[in-house]
Amino acid sequence: MQRIAMLGSGFIARFYADSLQGYRNRDKVVSVYSRKKESANKYAEDYKVNHWTTKMEEAITNPDVDVVCVALPNNLHEEAVMLCCKHKKAVMVTKPLGRNAAEAKRMLEAVESAGIFNGYLEDLVYTPKFIKAFESVKNGALGRILWAKSRETHPGPHSDWFWDLEQAGGGCILDLGCHCVELTRTYIGKDILPVEVMCWADTQVKPIDAEDHAIALVKYENGAIGQFEVSWTFRGGLDLRDEVMGTEGTIWINNFLRTGFEMFTTGKGADYVSEKSETNSGWLFPVGDELNELGYNHMFMDMFFSLEEGREPKETFYDGYVVNSILDAAYLSAKTKLWEPVKLDIWRGKSGFKKENSLIEYDADHYLIKEEVTHYGSKKIILKNKKSGKISERVLES
Amino acid sequence: MQRIAMLGSGFIARFYADSLQGYRNRDKVVSVYSRKKESANKYAEDYKVNHWTTKMEEAITNPDVDVVCVALPNNLHEEAVMLCCKHKKAVMVTKPLGRNAAEAKRMLEAVESAGIFNGYLEDLVYTPKFIKAFESVKNGALGRILWAKSRETHPGPHSDWFWDLEQAGGGCILDLGCHCVELTRTYIGKDILPVEVMCWADTQVKPIDAEDHAIALVKYENGAIGQFEVSWTFRGGLDLRDEVMGTEGTIWINNFLRTGFEMFTTGKGADYVSEKSETNSGWLFPVGDELNELGYNHMFMDMFFSLEEGREPKETFYDGYVVNSILDAAYLSAKTKLWEPVKLDIWRGKSGFKKENSLIEYDADHYLIKEEVTHYGSKKIILKNKKSGKISERVLES
Amino acid sequence: MQRIAMLGSGFIARFYADSLQGYRNRDKVVSVYSRKKESANKYAEDYKVNHWTTKMEEAITNPDVDVVCVALPNNLHEEAVMLCCKHKKAVMVTKPLGRNAAEAKRMLEAVESAGIFNGYLEDLVYTPKFIKAFESVKNGALGRILWAKSRETHPGPHSDWFWDLEQAGGGCILDLGCHCVELTRTYIGKDILPVEVMCWADTQVKPIDAEDHAIALVKYENGAIGQFEVSWTFRGGLDLRDEVMGTEGTIWINNFLRTGFEMFTTGKGADYVSEKSETNSGWLFPVGDELNELGYNHMFMDMFFSLEEGREPKETFYDGYVVNSILDAAYLSAKTKLWEPVKLDIWRGKSGFKKENSLIEYDADHYLIKEEVTHYGSKKIILKNKKSGKISERVLES
Amino acid sequence: MQRIAMLGSGFIARFYADSLQGYRNRDKVVSVYSRKKESANKYAEDYKVNHWTTKMEEAITNPDVDVVCVALPNNLHEEAVMLCCKHKKAVMVTKPLGRNAAEAKRMLEAVESAGIFNGYLEDLVYTPKFIKAFESVKNGALGRILWAKSRETHPGPHSDWFWDLEQAGGGCILDLGCHCVELTRTYIGKDILPVEVMCWADTQVKPIDAEDHAIALVKYENGAIGQFEVSWTFRGGLDLRDEVMGTEGTIWINNFLRTGFEMFTTGKGADYVSEKSETNSGWLFPVGDELNELGYNHMFMDMFFSLEEGREPKETFYDGYVVNSILDAAYLSAKTKLWEPVKLDIWRGKSGFKKENSLIEYDADHYLIKEEVTHYGSKKIILKNKKSGKISERVLES
Repeated sequence: MQRIAMLGSGFIARFYADSLQGYRNRDKVVSVYSRKKESANKYAEDYKVNHWTTKMEEAITNPDVDVVCVALPNNLHEEAVMLCCKHKKAVMVTKPLGRNAAEAKRMLEAVESAGIFNGYLEDLVYTPKFIKAFESVKNGALGRILWAKSRETHPGPHSDWFWDLEQAGGGCILDLGCHCVELTRTYIGKDILPVEVMCWADTQVKPIDAEDHAIALVKYENGAIGQFEVSWTFRGGLDLRDEVMGTEGTIWINNFLRTGFEMFTTGKGADYVSEKSETNSGWLFPVGDELNELGYNHMFMDMFFSLEEGREPKETFYDGYVVNSILDAAYLSAKTKLWEPVKLDIWRGKSGFKKENSLIEYDADHYLIKEEVTHYGSKKIILKNKKSGKISERVLES
Repeated sequence: MQRIAMLGSGFIARFYADSLQGYRNRDKVVSVYSRKKESANKYAEDYKVNHWTTKMEEAITNPDVDVVCVALPNNLHEEAVMLCCKHKKAVMVTKPLGRNAAEAKRMLEAVESAGIFNGYLEDLVYTPKFIKAFESVKNGALGRILWAKSRETHPGPHSDWFWDLEQAGGGCILDLGCHCVELTRTYIGKDILPVEVMCWADTQVKPIDAEDHAIALVKYENGAIGQFEVSWTFRGGLDLRDEVMGTEGTIWINNFLRTGFEMFTTGKGADYVSEKSETNSGWLFPVGDELNELGYNHMFMDMFFSLEEGREPKETFYDGYVVNSILDAAYLSAKTKLWEPVKLDIWRGKSGFKKENSLIEYDADHYLIKEEVTHYGSKKIILKNKKSGKISERVLES
Repeated sequence: MQRIAMLGSGFIARFYADSLQGYRNRDKVVSVYSRKKESANKYAEDYKVNHWTTKMEEAITNPDVDVVCVALPNNLHEEAVMLCCKHKKAVMVTKPLGRNAAEAKRMLEAVESAGIFNGYLEDLVYTPKFIKAFESVKNGALGRILWAKSRETHPGPHSDWFWDLEQAGGGCILDLGCHCVELTRTYIGKDILPVEVMCWADTQVKPIDAEDHAIALVKYENGAIGQFEVSWTFRGGLDLRDEVMGTEGTIWINNFLRTGFEMFTTGKGADYVSEKSETNSGWLFPVGDELNELGYNHMFMDMFFSLEEGREPKETFYDGYVVNSILDAAYLSAKTKLWEPVKLDIWRGKSGFKKENSLIEYDADHYLIKEEVTHYGSKKIILKNKKSGKISERVLES
Repeated sequence: MQRIAMLGSGFIARFYADSLQGYRNRDKVVSVYSRKKESANKYAEDYKVNHWTTKMEEAITNPDVDVVCVALPNNLHEEAVMLCCKHKKAVMVTKPLGRNAAEAKRMLEAVESAGIFNGYLEDLVYTPKFIKAFESVKNGALGRILWAKSRETHPGPHSDWFWDLEQAGGGCILDLGCHCVELTRTYIGKDILPVEVMCWADTQVKPIDAEDHAIALVKYENGAIGQFEVSWTFRGGLDLRDEVMGTEGTIWINNFLRTGFEMFTTGKGADYVSEKSETNSGWLFPVGDELNELGYNHMFMDMFFSLEEGREPKETFYDGYVVNSILDAAYLSAKTKLWEPVKLDIWRGKSGFKKENSLIEYDADHYLIKEEVTHYGSKKIILKNKKSGKISERVLES
């Protein structure tokens, strides 16, 4: 059983409480910190938390607390983590880890130096669909991964601080791109070095200083490409989709808007449908179990079991740091309009990868380009001569 | 924490162990009974069960056991339940409760007379999608329910006894129809009396004595219709869909083959994809988390929390008995080719329902039949004169 | 080039004009009849028709007219057809052919006796999806057909006469069931005798005398089952889906609400989306080309080319008569609550079919019931002993 | 009626013949040219073409010919067009117009100088779905367009010349990107100037000199972004999808792999399913009517009616030239790794656009950032102070 101090009492802190108390069904929030007294109080009531406070350190040092869960605005992560280091309390931080790689690096070095458990709360690599898809990828069902894209777009976040560049540290790239980067990086291989990033970003709609729409490509050392598409200007709900291409296969995952649950209603009796839904009449696409489909349950299971068994969880501050480094390159690229290198002072994966050779030998003189069945049922092959490079086709009798 | 005696060691007993040990993460199978020594032994090893036996009563009377989980062929349910009554052990039985209503009724009366906890393991009313859909229905998002259909078809069950009429007590109607009946009955209202059943059943493909394909309509006292479509001859995987029509809305649920997870693979690296999948190359449609999507997790949560809190679970032997009674009528109807009444000696719901009046008054003289917007943007109404019954249409200026 | 007299000027007469003038792009409506002067006039203007009249016979006898297209309320079909017979004009009639089989039979006998071209305008067997699906079925991709279902439900028809039992001859069974019956009959085989029908029908919502919701099963001589689900009380648009099960495969067709075209709009700039759509904001599901997707184009192509080449079109009055006969049995069954025989005085297909034997021999002593791959990668077979009937399973090493 | 000289006899020339002879049903191929005698002969036989030749000019100058259809490898387009100019024959050219903008520009200037009809055969802006979607966009259902993406990926083209850099002039960017660019450009507005392009391209799998996978962003003067994703290494069939985001809505179109037609087959009776399908067993996703769904029918209708009515078709050489110019910038960007300007010596659209202001005034002091309904049914608004820029939130009573 784990006893948690929750730092923060907003939307995400509530999602966390719902899932961390629910699934293993033995863990409990025992202290909650919020900057606002009323929020702390309300949260404590709603989740039956014994202790609430408006002083962060008080929640962390509460002797009942085993582990601290940081669910604060991005600009407060570092302060919270440093306090956990000071008091040697295990810590888990919501995404993104920092507002930038410099913050993330300081946090990473601090927790490792303090020797405390550190978990990076990136829920989307814990969704049941992702977990199963990733197993298939590991088993080779897709062959070599060529491209992995993740898209997260919706009509904008729920709390004011997200829209404030100083507190948030960025716009939709930081808010949503952090998910996409970790998802695609995992498909491609967490050991594979991200090399450089090209990013377009703009403030197309909202009256804010940060970007509300962005697209980026992340090139990995082995030639694979990660892609993210993020926006706070999407209309229609929460669009959360991944696509992966490999030499032997394809994966398409739709996590939210099309999951096999469709409802039409004229609007009588309507109420809360699901996160970021825009309407409550007409055709609606609810999700059966949001906490589970968004990965929260499996994330906290991994965190708590890892903590209890003395091992690292699947996602640590190191992962958060790598993600921040990639996003830093994206932000820089959006300004310079250049492919910007990913700067990783700390890199624990492999390096020196070359692009793999995937030539298929057809016969002594030819490589096979393509083989197909024609309309007429014959087999047709397209070949490349090894020496001359000349391309030719042959139709084989069926 | 609950300590379980598992009676049975087959496919479903394994699914149960995976989910009941997993979700609340505190319950445990402590004894397993199987008719075959090797199976009991293997199961005990795989799930780290301390005690195994080939004597049913020995598992039930094991002093470590709090609750007995019956996962045996249908013809052994009654014997197992009677032993639980004898020894006053809480009992949960896999679906269908009995091979027929007579068996189910004896079991129901026995557990109630013995005063023991009794749970009916109908997992599909515990799927996250169903739970959420049913909330919407209760909240009135669909208005009055007119029709609820459930379809479960696949290429046939995994174990030999299902195919043997004596042990199973029936074919796909009993195996799959029990799910469909409880799902549709819940949408329509568990308090509403099922009145009569019309069923077609046939053995279209398999060399067996039982039916391998059936369709039925169940008429309820308030005029709503339940429908089931079940088959062991479906090609393409496990087709598990519900559709509901109400006066104000529609629900479509796809539980398995189309849930937002699509994979194409040439077949390299292929292995187990999901329950009852027929291929492991080409386009595949895995499910993220089968146990959760099929309702097992929430089912055992409800069972164990109910047991601990001294209340009835959502599904009890009484529900199993009602389901068996409806299926008995279906079997009889398939033979007599008549609408057969549902015989319910025990009925705890309401009765005396009339079909609801849903006339919409348009003005003093007319009822409204329909209102629509035409191609040309005008509003068109179709009316019925209250006295003459004459039908007319009017186009209103837009 | 064909010159058409259009009898009727309503919704369907407009759909017809749009498609018959459009696709072959040489045919033309040259005369239009309507009971209402303004309607005839308006139609003539909109479609640039030279001649309009409120006298049916005048349109038919117009010397410019090659072929008469009957798009009138059901109760006027017979009169129109008889006039075509009298004047020896080729005739095409919208669905259903008659209000009942007696009317249909008289029309069939009259056109055959008059020796005139007769086409039955059942558009849905001409949709591009159906045409391709049916080719696959003919080629054996699904094996032997076991079951074919067609569902057509929507919020109710556009014109007043549909809702009037006298003019329409029935409710949604006649209006929509005629489509479903011909679709499923074609999948199963137009040569296979429909034997008997079981139908449930009710007036669940609308203040009308006819049924607004019905479900039926049609049993064919070879054991195959046709099914229809029809309603005027569906919420959410036009639901038009077919499902077919065969021993070797499955077909699922969605003709309207889910065709790969999805649009979300807040509602600004909204206008006509598609036939029977209920909303113009939120998630909408338009169809690219309604006329084509609903089969009108290919239907008139077949009609006109058949006429020009002196052969029968795919759908003739004979088909319309068979459909009416099946629907008559459905209406009778809804009243008597019995499986009612299909009465076919005229039957031009085969008869004497027995249910096919589909036993699969495993070895000298056993039939194969099922073969599957287990979780563990082994192959498992379930067998039936030819003599004893005993069922057993074997796990083969993988 | 149009009489066509078909230059080319390959896959696309056959698709063209199927659609141009079929839809208007009056036009006809009267002469066919192929470099190979057997191909010309075979084509003439299959399509009942009177005249065939291996001399290009002979087909063009054939006195029966009204219009020349160029369906040759890319490197032969210019020669063919110049001959049409010389002989003043109307000409239609398959996509892409040229191998680069220089070729395209020469062709554009030549046809305009010769004063002949010129059509650019970009079929995908003529698909029924695109046509309807574009109408909605024009009507404002999506508000201001922010982003339009088109994706076309498949396992590679059918003929050898595509794989040969010299003949094709490029890889999948030229082959598939030309479609995507014209689709997205049309959504955004053909009058809006494309400004610059960032492109990633690589040869990830195939043993060829050209790229087999590429992704690009095209920035327009008004701030909108066009995106293409193209590949010859996709596994699973022909993936043809568009996505559009506007300030008021969203469009998702799936043209091929998920169109509401799903078939499972064990593989018996299998044959040609659809263009670029990779398998013929398991779950298959055929398209009802490929020619229509891919836009060929409506494309030739527009071409021929335009020709007959003396007006420009929707797509002319000018459009082909703009597309080539954008693709040139993409190729350059893939090499330089920079955003490359689109060089358009000829531009007939608007210019001088500024990014639109989309500030929403909430009250005298604030802009509205977002308005939403919370879990608890209250309305929450997020505001920006006009002067201070400070962001705040308010919860309004519900």
